Amino acid sequence: MSQLLRKNIEAISPLTDDEFEYILSHFEYKKFKKHSFLVQEGNDVRCEYFVLKGCVKAYITDKTGKDFIFQFGTEDWWITDREAFFKKTKATHNVDCIEDCEVLGITLANREKLASEMHKYEHFLVMRANLGYVSLLKRIQSMIMEDAKERYEQFIEQYPKFHNQIPKSLIASYLGISRETLSRLYRV
Amino acid sequence: MSQLLRKNIEAISPLTDDEFEYILSHFEYKKFKKHSFLVQEGNDVRCEYFVLKGCVKAYITDKTGKDFIFQFGTEDWWITDREAFFKKTKATHNVDCIEDCEVLGITLANREKLASEMHKYEHFLVMRANLGYVSLLKRIQSMIMEDAKERYEQFIEQYPKFHNQIPKSLIASYLGISRETLSRLYRV
Repeated sequence: MSQLLRKNIEAISPLTDDEFEYILSHFEYKKFKKHSFLVQEGNDVRCEYFVLKGCVKAYITDKTGKDFIFQFGTEDWWITDREAFFKKTKATHNVDCIEDCEVLGITLANREKLASEMHKYEHFLVMRANLGYVSLLKRIQSMIMEDAKERYEQFIEQYPKFHNQIPKSLIASYLGISRETLSRLYRV
Repeated sequence: MSQLLRKNIEAISPLTDDEFEYILSHFEYKKFKKHSFLVQEGNDVRCEYFVLKGCVKAYITDKTGKDFIFQFGTEDWWITDREAFFKKTKATHNVDCIEDCEVLGITLANREKLASEMHKYEHFLVMRANLGYVSLLKRIQSMIMEDAKERYEQFIEQYPKFHNQIPKSLIASYLGISRETLSRLYRV
């Protein structure tokens, strides 16, 4: 299953077998049960995670206890509280498992070690960060410009797997609409 | 004025005088008049720009001709159509000058040359991309969770300079509210 990680890196930086084995040795394989936390608000953020199997959601809880989902992560996605991870501060949001998950985690120390040792890996990191930036920017554009129906259609187009994998109530939260509104769009 | 660029890079990667001079030699200094375009939809995106002076806005125009501002850039900011710049495709949005501007531009070829020659510079790029990602993610969280008043207050807090520098009608567009609603918030 670690081949998924190799494929993810090689989409940007092709690797030899030895290089990939070396990179992989800096990751730790972990299993998480449904509802358990990869990142928990107020705690240290030990790792950045690459999802091998399953699906997670990232969300903030406001003062009234309402959850706001702002990201999903499924197979082949990277997820953590990136700010807390880099700044070594406490997490300001949660990432938990919608279903049983298997992930590869890397600590900041190992990430920086790899980046300083392998220019190829640092190149991969910079390109991945740039692509992530572009994808968030598109999401902001969509939030500003599009109505609920267009955003839902875009969601399905962008994440065809998610569409079946994630409970509709969570998709509604992500899109910032009610479960009822989503049901209406879903039936159209 | 190029010291602004040095300060920006050195916030992440300290440089010797020679290293900075070498980096700077890969940038071109340009002046843009108010209303002129750094990036124009449908055109090639030649450079990524670091703003030395002035203020720019990035926006998309929808089918009905309505503009949606999704980013501002002022002194000490980097701006371009990042996706088109990296993928060498045509721009999908505009970046134009709200006032007369002075910028330093770097082509993709020069950016990649510097990154491959100087590990320090690649490290700067990866950290900058990560911080940019974090800042967009916070913006998405704010768009999902906060009402117009909270978003406006956050805008003032985050960009104290912008608050005076940018016409209120443009701030209203950025916040996704009407000019009238902003006026009400502004008076409170």
